[in-house]
This record gives sequence, structure tokens and C-alpha cells, in this order.
Amino acid sequence: MNEIETEIETGTQTQAEVSLVVQQLTEAEGEAQAEVFSDILEEAEPGTISILLESLPLDERYDRWQQVAIEARAEVLSLMRADPRLGILKKMPSEEIDLLFSQLSPEDLIDWSDSLPDSMIDRALAQMGERQRRHFELYNQYGENEIGRYADHQMLVLGHLSSVAQGQRFFRRIDLDCNDHLFLVDEEDKYLGTVRRHDLFKQDPDTLLESLIWEDGRSIAADSSLIEAAEAVEHSRELEFPVVDAEGVLIGRVTLRTATALVREHYEAQLMATAGMDEDDDLFAPIMIGARRRAVWLGINLLTAFLASATIGLFENVLSQVVALAVLMPIVASMGGIAGSQSLTLMIRGMAMGQISAGNVMSLLKNELGIGAVNGILWSITVGIVAGWWFNDGVMGVIIGSAILINMAVAAMAGVIIPMVLQKFNQDAALSGSVILTTVTDVVGFFTFLGLATILYL
Amino acid sequence: MNEIETEIETGTQTQAEVSLVVQQLTEAEGEAQAEVFSDILEEAEPGTISILLESLPLDERYDRWQQVAIEARAEVLSLMRADPRLGILKKMPSEEIDLLFSQLSPEDLIDWSDSLPDSMIDRALAQMGERQRRHFELYNQYGENEIGRYADHQMLVLGHLSSVAQGQRFFRRIDLDCNDHLFLVDEEDKYLGTVRRHDLFKQDPDTLLESLIWEDGRSIAADSSLIEAAEAVEHSRELEFPVVDAEGVLIGRVTLRTATALVREHYEAQLMATAGMDEDDDLFAPIMIGARRRAVWLGINLLTAFLASATIGLFENVLSQVVALAVLMPIVASMGGIAGSQSLTLMIRGMAMGQISAGNVMSLLKNELGIGAVNGILWSITVGIVAGWWFNDGVMGVIIGSAILINMAVAAMAGVIIPMVLQKFNQDAALSGSVILTTVTDVVGFFTFLGLATILYL
Repeated sequence: MNEIETEIETGTQTQAEVSLVVQQLTEAEGEAQAEVFSDILEEAEPGTISILLESLPLDERYDRWQQVAIEARAEVLSLMRADPRLGILKKMPSEEIDLLFSQLSPEDLIDWSDSLPDSMIDRALAQMGERQRRHFELYNQYGENEIGRYADHQMLVLGHLSSVAQGQRFFRRIDLDCNDHLFLVDEEDKYLGTVRRHDLFKQDPDTLLESLIWEDGRSIAADSSLIEAAEAVEHSRELEFPVVDAEGVLIGRVTLRTATALVREHYEAQLMATAGMDEDDDLFAPIMIGARRRAVWLGINLLTAFLASATIGLFENVLSQVVALAVLMPIVASMGGIAGSQSLTLMIRGMAMGQISAGNVMSLLKNELGIGAVNGILWSITVGIVAGWWFNDGVMGVIIGSAILINMAVAAMAGVIIPMVLQKFNQDAALSGSVILTTVTDVVGFFTFLGLATILYL
Repeated sequence: MNEIETEIETGTQTQAEVSLVVQQLTEAEGEAQAEVFSDILEEAEPGTISILLESLPLDERYDRWQQVAIEARAEVLSLMRADPRLGILKKMPSEEIDLLFSQLSPEDLIDWSDSLPDSMIDRALAQMGERQRRHFELYNQYGENEIGRYADHQMLVLGHLSSVAQGQRFFRRIDLDCNDHLFLVDEEDKYLGTVRRHDLFKQDPDTLLESLIWEDGRSIAADSSLIEAAEAVEHSRELEFPVVDAEGVLIGRVTLRTATALVREHYEAQLMATAGMDEDDDLFAPIMIGARRRAVWLGINLLTAFLASATIGLFENVLSQVVALAVLMPIVASMGGIAGSQSLTLMIRGMAMGQISAGNVMSLLKNELGIGAVNGILWSITVGIVAGWWFNDGVMGVIIGSAILINMAVAAMAGVIIPMVLQKFNQDAALSGSVILTTVTDVVGFFTFLGLATILYL
């Protein structure tokens, strides 16, 4: 039992273990930190080392990076986000960079190249052999959102005239992750079909593999989008799918492991996008770079805020006479914003599943309007009573109640319609949906509230 | 080649294919819809059928549900979200429910039970055999966030005195998804170790499996959290991990496929939580149920909105004299809110990776404050100039510029500190972080802006 217990403790670190070493490392400073890190380096996996480096401020990060063994560096950097990786590369002396590039696989370079300046890519290619360079060119034909770019070329491939014995030998000799298929190709490397590992058992060794091609075997087109390819693998019962180019040539495979990573990146990108940020962003971005990236989103938001202000500006007259309006108006805008974001979130999820279409959008609108009306009535009465009592003014209660009811109904509609329109124009509703929605609910909220007040008070 | 092309088109539907059938189905009505659906049923996988049913309004959904073949029903319902599933169950006649429950596996019932009333669970258990019931009880000891609850008991298990020949026979006979390990147990079912499929090759058939136990094999504790277990599998090179209870007994396995589903659910829950919603929510919730769920979040938000209003209320005096303040004040709050949410989003991602700890939080704070200051200066000057020109009032430009600068600095700090505090109290920063943050930036924004105005104008 003793043996087993130690086994359980080594290997891939869990998140709790990672947190612990992050704490140990970040709490130490200078020399002490160097010592802690060299202890960690002895046991930690490359993935943990990259997480650790990312959790350090830039100067400490580079000091610790220099402790990482030369032969581990390519893998550690590959497992980092693009921004921190580029930050380290920019500081490295040029001989070290060349050494690093000489350890890089074509797949790694493809991953890196999305964020690498062209001059660096050329330097990396210069360090590669002719065959690797051709591999890079093959993947590099595909765009950043096409699965062909990230296809894995470590797979079991045999000519269609191969025998069961050859297939069995392959599985015995080669120990790949996520490997339960053999792919058959013709003389021109065109994909002919998949043979399942399990179907090789109990066969005569001389049987041709061609006769065992699996009827349900499918391939993925190299120009499929990343998330589409990932979901095909995820929702299958297979561990790997062949990736095939426009001519039918087998160029690689996508595994369930890759699919999981792609799904995770997809969601991370979506979560970061809700704040106008990027999945590659560094926890410790250099201040000027971080500020510049975020400035764009702040600028867009400022334009919408000015729009809301301009709406309020239309009603200076009534505002100057009834100051309570200024006090209460944020409530109207805010209730609409929250209600709208609830509809929007439901829509975005439904669209991600392919569940929304022209055929059911009217029913959805009706349903969301119904929910908006129920909550609108509930909260407009509540706020109306509170506001009326607060300012001892029944008319004020009626005005704010009506404005909230109207704004929440508009919010429900906007939450359904905005993502549909964005989708029509191929825009990502997760990125821009909430800014547009808030603009609508702010403008409508201020306009109805102050407009009603103008009618009833002036 | 012809054969291969048709193969590619059948099988698991991709998202684009699902979208297409959703469209066909939702655009048809009544009888025509019934016909379209019966055509779809012939080809579609259970997962597609459940997505289709979820995309229909409630009355149409139940009509179409009745077309689903009895023997497919348990699987289709299992693949649906909890809310729509429960909606269908509530409408079904009681004989049909019993028939359905008799097809349910203990694992399915565990999945369902989180949202099922106790009376339904008892009915389902009554339909199960003794062995299945015991399985249910085994999993049901674990909480909704513990991996033991969702462990898969279909796995290859052998006694530690078994031979290589026996192990090989297992792999040949049994065709499981995500299966590259054999788990060895002692006489009391205690987990002893893992043997890799690949290590069985080239061994003498009489060799004891015990001697092939894989040194790096690890197990997962049954009370580990879902996401922790999922990440352990995801970041390993293995397809499956054994799940072991507190006494060391092997109770099941977690596969890479399960891990992928858990990661996806984790992120979906996080995205829905940003709008105060639940991952199980139905696209077409009955209006009263949908309204009640969302009302809670609207109510919480209303409290924070009243807090902001109360802050404004402190400055009625200056507002009644300078109406431009009411026009401009939403800009100050909004710029702070956006800047804060950027810091918060970065923190939440870092915390999810275990990258944030007491040791680096001060450096993070410094970095975020730096970025906040740069953007604060940039945007306070911009807004100051625009506002000064708009109202032809230089003092107003100075007031709003200063308020924005202060609010953005506070927002950066709040974005770092709020999630740290929430984590201390074991609260989910993704759920409540943004409400608290917005409250802070609203209150601070209004207070500094109107406070400065009071000092400078009165």
C-alpha cells in the first residue's frame, strides 16, 4: 500500500496543489524565491510551471524563467498564454531564442505564430528541418479559426492494402494518447476510412484492413471551425476524428483531448469578451499595453454613456424643477439593464446550441415579454410605492412605476432581437450584445421616465 | 469513394446540422410539424432530439414528445436540461412514467434526482432491481458537487492475482468508451493500482497483473469537487481515472468524456450566473416560473440601485442648482463600472487557474492601479474637455474629470479586492462579484462627482 500512496501524490498537479505552490512562490522574494522555485522545478509538470510563471509580476517572472532548464523551455512556453509568452521571448537574448526555436515542433510554432511577429516566425523556421518546415506550411494555410491549423499529425495511418497483422503491430508498438482508430489512405494519401482498434481482434492476420472499414466512421473537413470540430468529437463516442482537406487528403486528426482544450478556450474567450478583453491577456500585462487594450472598450462604452447623457439633456427643464427625478432615474435604467441581460444570456446560450431560429423566435419573444411583464408589474408597483412614499409624491410613484414597466418590456424584446440581428450580420453576440443592450435600456429608461415627468409635471 | 461520402453525412449531427433541423421543425406547425418530426426521428441521435425538444414552446414540445419512441425516451430525457425534463415529466400520465423509470439506469436517476421531487425518486426506485437500487444509494451518498456522485461504474476491474491473459481477454471482449486502463482491487474491493492497456503487450500471459502496476497511476478521491476531478483528467495524458472512497474502495471511474462535459457545464453555469440565472433554466420556461426565478436577481439589483439613489439624494441641493450634473452623472458611474469589470474578469480567470494568492495580490493591485491610472487620466481629460465645452463651463470639466479619475482608480482596487474577499468567505466571485462591484462604482462615482460639485459650486 505504501507504494500506491506515494503514487497518488505525484504526477499531474491538481488545482489545489497548484494554488499551494503559487502561494509558496509568490510569498517568497529574491534569493528565497529562487530557492523555492528550484525545489518546485524538480517535481512540477510543465503545465504547472507555466501557470506559476504567469502568476509572477514581470521582473520576477523573467528571473525565474532563467532557472527553467533549457530542454524544458519550449514546452513550458507552449503551455503559456500568448501575451506572457511573447513578453518572455522579447527579453531573451538572441542565442537562447535560436536554441529554443530549434526544439520547437511545427505544431508548437503554429500555436505561437498567431501572436508572434513575422521576423520571429522566420527565425524559427530557419531553425527547422525541411520536413518540419513543410509541415508548418501545411497547417499555416488554414486560418486561426479553422481546425486544419491545429490538426495533430501524430496518428496511425496505413495504406488500404495493409493487413490486420500490420494494424495490430501499429497499436502494439505506438503508444499515442486518445488513440482507438487506424486511418486508411490510398496511394495519394486520400482518406479512405477508419478501422477501429476493437475490430482488429479475432480477425485473421492476413485479412485486408479495407474490409474492416467502420461504417459509422466520419471525417472532419479541415476548414471546419474550431468549436464545430470540437463539438463533433465531444458529442461522439470516439476518441479521434480524421481531418481531411478539400481534396480528400488526410492531414491530421482531432482528439477528444484537443476538443476539451478548444471548448475551454471558447468559453474563456466568451467570458473575457463580456468585459471587452482577450483570452490571451496577461495577468501582469505591462501597464501601457494593458491600458491600451482596455482603452478601446472604455471608449466604446463612453460613446454609449454620452448617448444616455444626451437623452437626459433633452429634459433639463423638468429636471431643474423636480430634483427627485435625478435621484430616481438610475433605478429605471438599471432595472431595464438587468432584465434585458437575463433575456440576452438565455438567447446567447440557446444560439450556441443551435436552438434559436426564425421559426421559434416569435414564441421566444412572446415568452420573454410575458416574463418581462410579470416582473415589470411586480417591480414597478414596488418601486412606485417606495418612491411615492420617499418623496411624499403619488405622481412620482406613478411615473417611475410606468417607466420601469415600459423599460422592462422593451428590455425583454431587445434581449431577444439584438442577438438575432447580430447573428444575421455574423457578429458575436457575447462580445457586443451587452453594450448595445445597455445603451437601449439606458436611453429608453431615461426617455420614458423623464418624458412622462415632463407630461405630468409641466 | 461513394460509400465514404455517405458515411460522412450520417452519424452524430454537427451544430450546423442541428440548426437546420431546428429551423425545419420550428417553422412547421401542427400536423406538418408532426410529419417533419417523425422524419427527423428516423435519423437523429438522442442528443439532437433533446436539443430539438428544448427549442420548442411548451405545448408543441409535449405534442412532439409523444411521438418519441418509448424505448428512446429515457435517453432523450437524460440528455435534456433539468427544467425542460421536469416539465415533460409533470405532464406525463402515470403509467408512462413508470415505464420510463423502468428503463432508467442508476446513473441516470442520480443525474435526474437533483431536480426531481422526492416522491418521483421513490417511484423510480420502486421500478428498479435490488442491485440497481444499491448502486443508486452508493452514488447518492455524495453531494451534488462531489465526483463520487457521477462516477461511472462501467470499467475494467480485476482482482490483483489475475494474469496478463485475463487482462487481455477483458480488453478484447469489452468495448468501452475512453478505456485504456485496467483497475486492480484486493478481496475487499480496495483499489490497488492501475495497469495500462499498452503495458499488457509483449508480456507472458501468465505474468501477474500486480507486477505491471503503473508507477504514475493515480486515483481521485470520491469527495473531490467536480471541476477539480475534471481538470485532473483533462490535464493528464490518461483517458480515465479510478474514483476511490474514504476507505480506499474503488467505486467507479471518471473519463475524459465526462471531464469535457463537466468543464462545459462549469463554464455554462458561470456564464448564466453573470445574469443571476441557472444552468438548468429552460429556454421556454413557464412564464410564472421564469418570472419568479429572475425576480430574485432583479430584487438584489434593486437594493443596490436604491443605494445609488440614496447617494444622489444626499446632493439634492447642488443638483437643483446645476442641472448639468444630472445630465453628466451617469457617465462617471458607467466608466467606473466598465473599468472595474475588466479588473474583476481578469481576477476571476486567474483565481480559476489557482494563480492568485496572498503573495501576488499586492503586485496585482499595483498593476491594476497603474492601468486604471493611465486610462483614468486619458478618459478624464477627454470627458473633461467634452463636458466643459458642452456646458460651456470649465469648472464642470474639472469636476467630471477628477471624479472619473478617482472612480476608475477605486474601480481597479475594487476589482482586485472584492473577489479576494468573496473567496475568503467561500463565495462565488462570478455570481456576486459584479453586483457588488457595480454598487461600489455607482456609489463612489455619484459621491465624488456630486461631492466635488458641492464644494466647487456652493
